[in-house]
This record gives sequence, structure tokens and C-alpha cells, in this order.
Amino acid sequence: MTQTLSDTRRQQCTQMVSQTPFIQHLGAEISLLEWGQCTLVMPVGPEHLQQDGFVHAGVQSTLADHACGTAAYTCLRDQQQILSIEFKMNLLRPAKGQQLKAVAEVIKAGRRVSVVQAQIYCGQGDNWVQTATMLATMAVIDSAEA
Amino acid sequence: MTQTLSDTRRQQCTQMVSQTPFIQHLGAEISLLEWGQCTLVMPVGPEHLQQDGFVHAGVQSTLADHACGTAAYTCLRDQQQILSIEFKMNLLRPAKGQQLKAVAEVIKAGRRVSVVQAQIYCGQGDNWVQTATMLATMAVIDSAEA
Amino acid sequence: MTQTLSDTRRQQCTQMVSQTPFIQHLGAEISLLEWGQCTLVMPVGPEHLQQDGFVHAGVQSTLADHACGTAAYTCLRDQQQILSIEFKMNLLRPAKGQQLKAVAEVIKAGRRVSVVQAQIYCGQGDNWVQTATMLATMAVIDSAEA
Amino acid sequence: MTQTLSDTRRQQCTQMVSQTPFIQHLGAEISLLEWGQCTLVMPVGPEHLQQDGFVHAGVQSTLADHACGTAAYTCLRDQQQILSIEFKMNLLRPAKGQQLKAVAEVIKAGRRVSVVQAQIYCGQGDNWVQTATMLATMAVIDSAEA
Repeated sequence: MTQTLSDTRRQQCTQMVSQTPFIQHLGAEISLLEWGQCTLVMPVGPEHLQQDGFVHAGVQSTLADHACGTAAYTCLRDQQQILSIEFKMNLLRPAKGQQLKAVAEVIKAGRRVSVVQAQIYCGQGDNWVQTATMLATMAVIDSAEA
Repeated sequence: MTQTLSDTRRQQCTQMVSQTPFIQHLGAEISLLEWGQCTLVMPVGPEHLQQDGFVHAGVQSTLADHACGTAAYTCLRDQQQILSIEFKMNLLRPAKGQQLKAVAEVIKAGRRVSVVQAQIYCGQGDNWVQTATMLATMAVIDSAEA
Repeated sequence: MTQTLSDTRRQQCTQMVSQTPFIQHLGAEISLLEWGQCTLVMPVGPEHLQQDGFVHAGVQSTLADHACGTAAYTCLRDQQQILSIEFKMNLLRPAKGQQLKAVAEVIKAGRRVSVVQAQIYCGQGDNWVQTATMLATMAVIDSAEA
Repeated sequence: MTQTLSDTRRQQCTQMVSQTPFIQHLGAEISLLEWGQCTLVMPVGPEHLQQDGFVHAGVQSTLADHACGTAAYTCLRDQQQILSIEFKMNLLRPAKGQQLKAVAEVIKAGRRVSVVQAQIYCGQGDNWVQTATMLATMAVIDSAEA
């Protein structure tokens, strides 16, 4: 049931990442974007850490939430928007590495609600460890409603 | 069953906020700290926003998670640490204002696991709107284990 | 902002409990019903237990989910229905007692999505212990859409 | 890193299902049990339904929670027990069919906490539809502590 991402929608998704101040502030970029899928990657700086030297859970939830929202956005029709309703994240292992990556995949692209999961990894090169997992619910908003 | 927060523990909690790079990066400070309770406040800057001008959900989850962890930490014995196991956040309303505030309260201070809820508000002065709610689970770690 | 529950809506809510086979199977009844609020109570039988003699988490989540849905339903207009989108439940303490009670309260009655929390108690008479807490998201469905 | 399930542990897991009153009350049975994995199946009866004729979310969460707990239990050492800390379930589609199935898989088997996900399906024969997904956190309890 996978579909192809149109050029227009791909461009809108790219803007959803490049024009979001907090995502730009973190330095995140799209590394994969397909219908129902979005992977975001960001460099880990000293300012992103917890007091114990690991990446703060809030940085991980930010990247994962935004990847989930963008993944859900790929499945929408023109004139529709995405809003996060809620998300739940489990921290699995301490996050240590040069980069953080959130791999989001839509598991239900609904007419009004989409459900998306994301796996979060920390590392670099060929060496990544899964540090968290997110299950998120997104609202599909028709522009006429907004 | 409320207890008094010892000076030593109060100081450790204060350090848990002042020595966490990402929390300092956001500009967050403690505005209330008692046994089982922690309120964090931060100024909202343009870099904390979503593309639509509202505060990014990730900023809200960061502040709420850290408030929940600090609230849980107030209930621990010496030599114990707190680690986030998981959290779930519902976004209730668009977050717009000069400041963001997370009010966390422990609802179960367990021997091994603590459960904490946080209410997140955005606004300034006497004008605050609740924008999100979090329910979080924290692990109590004995230093000997770590 | 609390409103009064109309007689028509009260009757529809009562039917939502009395005409749901699994809720009747558990023996649950409404003990409080107001705008934005619903409390359900059920007798605990030996068939509702976990192998350790405590009430199964699934019984608690069933009662809490249904109380949340009914509480959300009290806030709707005619011709609207409620559907559970998702719920998250924390188990706080072992559940032992003659009755189980779920006290649900709407924290956001939205046009399309409602957010509800429930506190779950086990006990009898004047002796109740909180055993779980739920945070749930419900979809508001217009009959025309269904 | 998958391991083999010992006969002793397999027998303990089987008992965890066959000796749990509420699970027996629902008629659930193990259809797959391996290290880190448990699938439970149950027949859907008229008493398990919502007022709209679909399987109640509470039945689904019960089956999924128990499958998650049993899957986590397969990874434990002797003398350890499993307790549900929390779970979150998203309802994806209406559940209609002769049987309900919960396929649980451990995604982190920790020393103190395990994280498990479950996919819930409704249907029969070769015709199953995914109706829900769960992400659950389980505590690993040493018998000495209990």
C-alpha cells in the first residue's frame, strides 16, 4: 500500500524541517524521506547532554516527535496539516555518540488520526545503538478547519 | 505523607538542574522545590518555536521530563539516582507566551520506580494556559548498582 | 467552564454503559455521572484476578478506558460519538479488595479530540487504595462521518 | 542475541497463562512461546464486545498486557518475577473477527526493567487485521525482594 511521495509534498516536508526554528537550533536534517517514512539526523553537541554526559531525553523526544510528524505529513493530501496529539517514549539505553538519529515510520495513516513509531539511535559511522523508542499519535487537520 | 526536603537533598536537586547542559541551554530554572514537587520555568525564545510560531512539543517534553526527574529525586535517599524509564505527553493547546513552566508532582515514590505527573503551562505574569500534560515513570538507582 | 449534563445526554451515557456487553460482563455500573466526569464501579470476583491474587491490569484498564470514554461522551453534542484513540496506564500498587472503581475526568474537551484522566482504586466501604492511573485520548466522531 | 528457552522456564510461562484466572476467563491460550516472544490467542465471544459490536479495547489491552508480561518472563533467570509497570496502547482499527491475537516481543530485556511491544490482530484463518499496538514496561523482581 506504499505510495510515491510527490515532488510538491517532498518539498513541503523539507520545509517542515528546515523552517522549524527549534529543529534548526538542534542542527537536525532529513536523511531519508519517503511516503510514510522520515529519518532525521543531528550532530550531538556538549549543550545537548544530561549531567551524566549522555544525550538528554528531551533532545531525543524532540527529534523523534519531529520525525514522526514529518513522516505522517508525507501521507497527507494538499491543504492538510499535522499536529502532534501525544507521544510516549521509552528510554532503552544511555545515548552516547557523535550523532543522534530518529527513524520514523507511519503504522496507520488515517483520515483524521495517524499513528507513527520512531526508533532513536545514537552513534556514528557504522556504529549505532538504539537508545529509545517512541509511539506517537498525530492529528490530520484540514486547512479549512485551522 | 509529605516530608521535608533536607538541605543536602535540596542542594543536590538544584545541581541536577544547574549542571545539566541541555537544561541550562534552554535557560530553565527551578521556581519551586519541595519533597515530591518541582517546578521549572524557562524563557521562550524564537529558537524554541515550531514553524507555526508555537513552542515546539520537544521543548515542552524536555522541561516536563526534567521537572519530573527532579521531583522524583527529592524523594530519594542519599546515594540514589534517578533515570527516566519512559514518559507520555499529551499536547492540549497551542503554546504561546513569554515563558514555559512545568509543574511536576510525584504520585508514587516507590523503592525502585517512581511515577510522576507534570502539567505544562505557557504564558507570563498572571496569564498562563495549560498546554500539555505528562505522565512519567522514573527508575530509582542505587549508586552501588550504577 | 463546567456545564450541566442534559437528561438526554445522561440517558445516552447510561446506555453506553448498560448496553456494552464486556462492561456488563464485568458487572460495572455508573456511580457518578456529570458533565466531564464519570465514575464506574464493579465487584471484584475470583475470575478477575492475576495469578498472584491481585486484580488483573486488564480489568483495571477496561474499567478505566470505559470510564474515560463515558466521561468524554458527556461533553459531546447530539449526533456525536466517542472512540478510544489510545490510553496509557501506570500500575501503582497491587489491587486487592471487594470492588474496583475508576474515576474519570475530562481535562480537555476538544472539538475533535478529548483528553481524559482516570484514577483507579481498589477496596470497599471507606477503605480504598489507588492502584493505577490512566491518561487517555478519545476521538470525537460526527455521526455523518461514521 | 536470541537465546533458547529452557524447559523449566517454558513450563513456568505456560503456568503464568494457564493459572491466571482472568486470562482463563477470557479463554486465552499460548500459540507461540520463545525467548523474548509470546503470542496469545483467544476466541471472541459476544460478551467481549463494545456496544457497537467490535471487540472492547479492554479485552485487547488485557490480552496484549499478558502477552507482554509472558514475553518478558521468558528472558528472566530463575527466582525472578515480572510485574507490569505501565503500558500504552493505540487503537488502530475496529476489531471484528472470531479470534483475537496478541503478538508480543521483548525489545529490551533489562536487569531491572524490560520493554516489550505487542501487535494485536483480530480475525480468523488466514484473514487477520491489525487492530492495535502496545508499548509496555515491565519490572523484573527478584524473589528475595518480593
